[in-house]
Amino acid sequence: MALKEFNYARPIAYYETDAMGVVHHSNFIRLFEDARVAWLRERGLDRIHTPHGDAVFAVVDAQCKYMKPLRFGDFARVRVQVAGDGAKIKFRYAIYKNDETEPASLGSTLHVSIDKSFRISKPPAELAGVLKEEAWTETWP
Amino acid sequence: MALKEFNYARPIAYYETDAMGVVHHSNFIRLFEDARVAWLRERGLDRIHTPHGDAVFAVVDAQCKYMKPLRFGDFARVRVQVAGDGAKIKFRYAIYKNDETEPASLGSTLHVSIDKSFRISKPPAELAGVLKEEAWTETWP
Amino acid sequence: MALKEFNYARPIAYYETDAMGVVHHSNFIRLFEDARVAWLRERGLDRIHTPHGDAVFAVVDAQCKYMKPLRFGDFARVRVQVAGDGAKIKFRYAIYKNDETEPASLGSTLHVSIDKSFRISKPPAELAGVLKEEAWTETWP
Amino acid sequence: MALKEFNYARPIAYYETDAMGVVHHSNFIRLFEDARVAWLRERGLDRIHTPHGDAVFAVVDAQCKYMKPLRFGDFARVRVQVAGDGAKIKFRYAIYKNDETEPASLGSTLHVSIDKSFRISKPPAELAGVLKEEAWTETWP
Repeated sequence: MALKEFNYARPIAYYETDAMGVVHHSNFIRLFEDARVAWLRERGLDRIHTPHGDAVFAVVDAQCKYMKPLRFGDFARVRVQVAGDGAKIKFRYAIYKNDETEPASLGSTLHVSIDKSFRISKPPAELAGVLKEEAWTETWP
Repeated sequence: MALKEFNYARPIAYYETDAMGVVHHSNFIRLFEDARVAWLRERGLDRIHTPHGDAVFAVVDAQCKYMKPLRFGDFARVRVQVAGDGAKIKFRYAIYKNDETEPASLGSTLHVSIDKSFRISKPPAELAGVLKEEAWTETWP
Repeated sequence: MALKEFNYARPIAYYETDAMGVVHHSNFIRLFEDARVAWLRERGLDRIHTPHGDAVFAVVDAQCKYMKPLRFGDFARVRVQVAGDGAKIKFRYAIYKNDETEPASLGSTLHVSIDKSFRISKPPAELAGVLKEEAWTETWP
Repeated sequence: MALKEFNYARPIAYYETDAMGVVHHSNFIRLFEDARVAWLRERGLDRIHTPHGDAVFAVVDAQCKYMKPLRFGDFARVRVQVAGDGAKIKFRYAIYKNDETEPASLGSTLHVSIDKSFRISKPPAELAGVLKEEAWTETWP
């Protein structure tokens, strides 16, 4: 079964660094979001997401382990995997510095589909379809 | 004529610093906002502002001069002045490091009152009343 | 045994909100840091932390659960507890909206003491002394 | 004389929006920086900039006009021009929403070259060479 893994990359912004000269730990959570949004966009799922559609995926849990610092001048590569988890959607992420093979960070976010009144709602059918096709790899860094 | 100047102060957050060890220049714009919001709150004008009321003051211009760096461990003090400028509202700011008397930064923001559909609207009467009473000091650092 | 719990509070900044009208989930991690730094400052430990001293506490793990949204106009209160965990230091946090008694968020961060070359170093003696005196409450929201 | 204008583009991040559903005004200053850094990188000047080299270009002035809001789902395009201004370097920026021809924002930043002790220093020769070749277009939106 083919691995449908998604890769996202972008340079570190100067404003993401802190006084230690490294990316502030809160900004790894934002890198996760950038990668997640790129994943949605590649699958055309940004159409169902606000502001284009009504869906919003609220974050109910976020976790991040920090193994190596990233600096201005580095590229961040983010590998993304996703799986349905009952009514929830779980993303996991591995961030790599430039072309390194050991991850700089590992993390995950857990989401529920909500409507604009913050009520939990059924995930849109388009998303459910995509989740069925995506392979969650058990061997993860 | 009494000077109705407003003073706001808060410690610099670690996440506001960058790889040079100083507050990133974009965060001075956020310090301006913190001081502006505290000014509104002290006058009870946060009641008319979203999400409590319907008013929103969109920024149409922002300017900032940077004279001295601020670091984690510093307190930022912000002096605020405000004046009506036709249908617009102009705030100006002087940021000081700790108890220094020479400003670390000078700036201004220009605002229009808009409704939730982003249409320019008359500033709320409560604000107009406050603006009449406030003295804009011509001698500004 | 006396509970040495620390409480931190500040208003939500407008720039912390996102297009759903609520505080962006990455900013809860920054609220944790604000509360942690205030905890250090109250105990005089900011003197040992960069830029005043040589100590830096690198984050190696961060976790956050999101139960209720916070909005512009809300106050965030943060309860902080801390405990030594071998060579590591563990902080846990409960964020409350205004005067509510049910937490809006629960989280933790795990830290190692490092020097300016990013080498793991012994936590400063002043910190070790404080950790001995602080009571970690087992009943946590 | 050929126009050596630089164009930078990237999608708006969700965490850049605020409770009005639009990009927070402070984040336009960060978009300017992203575009400026991309400009430096395309010319190989990131090699002379910290952390790869010793040069740092401190911001001494930033200005921004806001004409139209940008939202999550939009692409921001940034046109960049640069010119030497005595010992200073001036960048100006025009931000466009998607493929629109009317700018959403116009701004500028003024920089001085400093060393790691924050002393004003001569701009690196590589930069001076580039500035000589770049055409500053007088007709700017």
